[in-house]
Amino acid sequence: MSNAKVWLQKGRKKRLEAGHPWIYSNEIEKLEGEAQPGDLVDVVGQNGRYLATGYYNPKSQITVRVVSYQPLDEMDADFFREKFRACEAHRSRFVPDRDCRLVYGEADFLPGLVVDRFADVLVVQMVTLGMDIRREALVEALVDVFQPKGIYERSDVGVRQLEGLELRTGVLYGECPRIIEIEENGLKLEVDIVEGQKTGYFYDQRENRASIEPLMKGWGARSGIRLESRPADTDTEVTRLVPVNSNGKEVAFPYWDGATVLECFAHTGSFTLHACKYGAKKVTCLDVSEHAIDTARRNVERNGFTDRVEFVAADAFDYLRTQVKGVEERAERSRAGADTSKPISGNGRTWDVVILDPPAFAKTKSAVAGACRGYKDINLHGLKLVNEGGYLVTASCSYHMRPDLFLETIQEAAADAGKLLRLVEWRAAGKDHPQLLGVPEGHYLKFAVFEVRSK
Amino acid sequence: MSNAKVWLQKGRKKRLEAGHPWIYSNEIEKLEGEAQPGDLVDVVGQNGRYLATGYYNPKSQITVRVVSYQPLDEMDADFFREKFRACEAHRSRFVPDRDCRLVYGEADFLPGLVVDRFADVLVVQMVTLGMDIRREALVEALVDVFQPKGIYERSDVGVRQLEGLELRTGVLYGECPRIIEIEENGLKLEVDIVEGQKTGYFYDQRENRASIEPLMKGWGARSGIRLESRPADTDTEVTRLVPVNSNGKEVAFPYWDGATVLECFAHTGSFTLHACKYGAKKVTCLDVSEHAIDTARRNVERNGFTDRVEFVAADAFDYLRTQVKGVEERAERSRAGADTSKPISGNGRTWDVVILDPPAFAKTKSAVAGACRGYKDINLHGLKLVNEGGYLVTASCSYHMRPDLFLETIQEAAADAGKLLRLVEWRAAGKDHPQLLGVPEGHYLKFAVFEVRSK
Repeated sequence: MSNAKVWLQKGRKKRLEAGHPWIYSNEIEKLEGEAQPGDLVDVVGQNGRYLATGYYNPKSQITVRVVSYQPLDEMDADFFREKFRACEAHRSRFVPDRDCRLVYGEADFLPGLVVDRFADVLVVQMVTLGMDIRREALVEALVDVFQPKGIYERSDVGVRQLEGLELRTGVLYGECPRIIEIEENGLKLEVDIVEGQKTGYFYDQRENRASIEPLMKGWGARSGIRLESRPADTDTEVTRLVPVNSNGKEVAFPYWDGATVLECFAHTGSFTLHACKYGAKKVTCLDVSEHAIDTARRNVERNGFTDRVEFVAADAFDYLRTQVKGVEERAERSRAGADTSKPISGNGRTWDVVILDPPAFAKTKSAVAGACRGYKDINLHGLKLVNEGGYLVTASCSYHMRPDLFLETIQEAAADAGKLLRLVEWRAAGKDHPQLLGVPEGHYLKFAVFEVRSK
Repeated sequence: MSNAKVWLQKGRKKRLEAGHPWIYSNEIEKLEGEAQPGDLVDVVGQNGRYLATGYYNPKSQITVRVVSYQPLDEMDADFFREKFRACEAHRSRFVPDRDCRLVYGEADFLPGLVVDRFADVLVVQMVTLGMDIRREALVEALVDVFQPKGIYERSDVGVRQLEGLELRTGVLYGECPRIIEIEENGLKLEVDIVEGQKTGYFYDQRENRASIEPLMKGWGARSGIRLESRPADTDTEVTRLVPVNSNGKEVAFPYWDGATVLECFAHTGSFTLHACKYGAKKVTCLDVSEHAIDTARRNVERNGFTDRVEFVAADAFDYLRTQVKGVEERAERSRAGADTSKPISGNGRTWDVVILDPPAFAKTKSAVAGACRGYKDINLHGLKLVNEGGYLVTASCSYHMRPDLFLETIQEAAADAGKLLRLVEWRAAGKDHPQLLGVPEGHYLKFAVFEVRSK
């Protein structure tokens, strides 16, 4: 039996031709033949020319999601096996860790399906009817291709309701321990696959977390060591720069020190762990949730960094504002020639590196203006707490906060704070989250490292 | 003697406050006091409030370039020493190679000055009057901070004429051999500091060149090896995927092969060298200039890759078009059921990885439309020559070709070629070319790696 045909309207944008796999209900002229919700349909242009095959759900605004650009009869276990092998090939080429996102929906040509690997367990999320009704075939193929000990479902996301689906969680195959130890960039982390956020862990920042390595060392100036010019000696006839302590005495190499770091919205403490691994001297690990702090603390212990991390359970906005108040009070006294050693209200602490990795502030398009204020506020306060010449590490995972808008928002914060920023890293989600060109929805994560100087 | 004052106009954009170091002549209300061309001036807002200090050139449309946000009397050797030390600190934190760009103008708070290090020689470019008249102080400071054996000037760039300056080249200090061997990512390259383009070598793609490493291996499928599913054995009760040859016989690990690569606009052959280092099987290294091919050939020999590289002296547009013609002819015959083994006009060659690193097609804003056509054409043809599942590596160094426009242009090429692209790398210039936030002029280089699949 051949697939029913979905005829597209005349005036639509050529998004499909440009690589976008979604057909909205208002782009459809008519359905020719019969299709049950979830069935494969052939998408044809207004001239009847075949364009693609996708699965159909008249309940959803995204009525067809394309799974193939060649005729296809069924998404059976063979179909999924072939796709999963391509997913695996991509990860083995680009992702150094075995623990990673194996399947990333549309960008792996499997719309509506996400699969993360946590050691020997796969966590699966199906967000569309077209995937949901094929769970048997896809589980069979997952077992064949990835050979896991267990597969756990975390289809507990609200977007399923747009597809007319209930939320579902539970074991789909084999054994699934609730707490699993994974490895990322040589660090060990525990993941709670049952109660953790989304599938349990956010793999999308793997490369971003690794990119903070160069920020963690070389803070010699902070511990009272500076470079001093020495007269030319007779051999080389050039002057020499030597590291000296506060008494002008030359000190031996290495004369640097590790960074002091503040991580806000720490969640599992992933940036804190990376900071420690790469040489931070002291990390302040902050989250509003006691449960998150407990997880972060266990992860810090697991990697032997306990003596270098302090934990703060507090609202990040409040905490940053309090520190800024102290910093400004101290500056005020210094300008007025008053005693700056006296206690100030608010602690007035500053750090070499401040890391801001907040949850999505803008979950819908209409929330963007509010989100801009939120991002500006937090970055403004974060900037003011970075030591001179230090770094601000800042991210946004709101799709609706577009990259240019995010950079403009930070630029406004910098202007207000009287800071000059140099961009030293500008990144997106990691390579286990590929991006289809022509599908802006896949580009949600912005990650930047700025050097911060006073004007 | 205090600096003259440049009063800014009322209605101007607050670019200066946002971190942009250029004051255009049409933003200036008046000059208070006397200033010779090149002198430092204080920039004040319409209320007379001090904003910044910069050097002055009434001949240039960019009349003031800011060098400090704190009052400053002179750019003397001490001034330069302090700036150069900050440049050095940034490179030692972020750049693994000693050979790199040491000073990158505005982004290192030294507008108009570029310094590249090639082994023991510095190559200096001064593009503004404000730098040109301070050459003694800056050379003194370069010698103190970087201790080179020689300093060579390559101020042979047209933009100097906008400042009322002649072109200048020649030895500024010590000994400067013309040909110098440098090291990048563990490769050796020769640089001609006298006749080479710009300062002799483009350091801005260092990290981009390194990023092609994962593309160069894992091409097993190409040499007749495929993965086959084997029945479950009794121990594990799961099926197993094994690599087999064309007779179905299991082959031993490693079963992959190196990539076939085409580099267009090869210049010194830098991507060719990296491809070989990272495991390419065969590289076609193409440039229109015989002189460039000679340099590339020597660099290939220097690193011991001669047997894996073939050189082609040809126009890239012509060469790509000829290959595409052959590919299309073959496809046509195949559709018609004709003999595809017969010779075709044009060679019809394809590669696993095609690299396009063209010179700037858009040197001015008005040239953008033409440049788009050029970028689309070359990427369209490049895409058609990538083997199924292979990669297109593509760059643009035209500032006027903004990042979004560049991506849109490639998307159009993909739609025309009937290809689906996945973005796996998206990068800019390397870390020895920092970017000031708020200064879009610093963001000129776009670099992308796409996975290419047929629809």
